[in-house]
Amino acid sequence: MIVEVCFSPALYPEFRKDDSIVVIVDILRATSAIVTAFMNGVNRIIPVATLDEAKEYKQKGYFVAAERDGIVRDFADFGNSPYNFKRELIEGRDIVYSTTNGTNCITMASHSYRVLIGAYLNLDAIARYVISENRDLVILCAGWKNKFNLEDSLYAGALSEQVLKNPEYHTVCDSAHASIDLWNIARPDLMNYIEKAAQRHRLKKNKLDDVIGYCHTMNLTTMIPALKENYLECL
Amino acid sequence: MIVEVCFSPALYPEFRKDDSIVVIVDILRATSAIVTAFMNGVNRIIPVATLDEAKEYKQKGYFVAAERDGIVRDFADFGNSPYNFKRELIEGRDIVYSTTNGTNCITMASHSYRVLIGAYLNLDAIARYVISENRDLVILCAGWKNKFNLEDSLYAGALSEQVLKNPEYHTVCDSAHASIDLWNIARPDLMNYIEKAAQRHRLKKNKLDDVIGYCHTMNLTTMIPALKENYLECL
Repeated sequence: MIVEVCFSPALYPEFRKDDSIVVIVDILRATSAIVTAFMNGVNRIIPVATLDEAKEYKQKGYFVAAERDGIVRDFADFGNSPYNFKRELIEGRDIVYSTTNGTNCITMASHSYRVLIGAYLNLDAIARYVISENRDLVILCAGWKNKFNLEDSLYAGALSEQVLKNPEYHTVCDSAHASIDLWNIARPDLMNYIEKAAQRHRLKKNKLDDVIGYCHTMNLTTMIPALKENYLECL
Repeated sequence: MIVEVCFSPALYPEFRKDDSIVVIVDILRATSAIVTAFMNGVNRIIPVATLDEAKEYKQKGYFVAAERDGIVRDFADFGNSPYNFKRELIEGRDIVYSTTNGTNCITMASHSYRVLIGAYLNLDAIARYVISENRDLVILCAGWKNKFNLEDSLYAGALSEQVLKNPEYHTVCDSAHASIDLWNIARPDLMNYIEKAAQRHRLKKNKLDDVIGYCHTMNLTTMIPALKENYLECL
C-alpha cells in the first residue's frame, strides 16, 4: 500500500486513483470546522464548491455556512470558524458549506473509494481507519488558492508518518518525504512554527486567528466525517 | 522585493508576474546539463517543449538533445546527461534541447522580465545577479511530470536563503519557507538526503545516476544562461 501527498488541488489530476482513500485537509479552517460540527451533533454537511450553489440552498431554506478569503458572505448564516459550529445552533441539522479552498477539494475527489475529512482533531482515528481498510492513501491538501501552504502540509506529514509506521505501507512520493521532514521540524513547537504560515497572517489581519491553537489540538474525537453521495456524514 | 517558490509548472499560473526574474531549476538533469553545455563552449541552446519540434529541428540539420523519462530518443544526437555535453562535441555549436520537464518550463516563463537557468553549478552567480537587478524572484521548479520533487525544491531553498540574506528581500511564500527548511535539513549531507528522492531511483534504474554528485556540485562557474527570444545564451 502506498502513501502519497498532493500539495494543491491544481496537482490532484496527477494523483487521482479511483480505488484510494483520499483525506482532505484544510486545517485553517474548513476541515477543522467540519470535524467540530460533527462533534457538536450536526446531522449532515453538504459541501458545495461555488457560492452560487450555496445561495441556491439558502433560498431553499437550508442553514448555510459560506466564506471566501476568511470573510463570511452576507447571505450566509455563518462562516468558517470552528467556533461558529456551536451545539445549540447545529445539533440535528443539515448544513450547507462552501469555503475558499476546502469544499472544492471534497467534490473534486468524489470519484475515489472514500473521501474523509482530516484534521488534527481526529488524526489518530483517521490513521487507524486508513490502515484497517488496507488501501492506498492520498492526502489532498487544500492549500491556498492552488498554492502550497504550510499548515496543511504539516498535517500531511503527521498523518503520513503515522500510517507509514504500519509495515504494509511505504512511499515513493517526494511530497510525502518533504511533509514528514517539515512535520518533524515543526512538531516540537508547532504554534511557533505556524507563525510563519501566510494563512496565520491572513487570519490575524482579519482578527480570525483565535482558532489557530484549537485547530492544532490533537485527537479530541474519533469521529471521521466521510462523503456519501453529495453529503458528509460520520463513518 | 519578494522571493517566491513555485513547486510545479502546473502551479505556475498562480505565480506569473511579467516584471519578475524567473529562475528555472531541473537539477536532475536539464538545468545542470544546460549550464555544463555553456561551460563547455556551446554557442546557443534552443529549448523546445515537444518532441515534434525537436524532430523538425533535427530534419533541418540541427544538433539535437532530446529525452523523455531519462531515455535518449532515437532521432536525437544525445540525451540529458551533463556528461554528454563535451567540449569536443558542442563547442561553438547551436543545440536544440527537449526534456521531460525542464525545457517546457523555460518556454512557459518566457513572458517574464528575465528567465535564467539555475543549477548548483552557478548558484552564487544567480543569487548575486538577482540581487543586483533588484527585482522580484520566482524560482520555478520543473518537478516531475507536474509533481513536486525534492531535488529542485532543495535548490529553491538554497537560492531563496541566499537572496533573502539581502535586506531588500523578504518572503511571505509558504513554499519558500518550506524549501529553506528542507534545504537546511539536507545540506549537512546532501548526497545522503537525495537518496530518498524518487528521481534518484529512476536514474539508478536506468543506470543514469552517475551524474548525481556532479549535479550537486557548488559554484563551478559564474556563467548564467538566460532566455533571449527563443534561445538561451549566457548573460
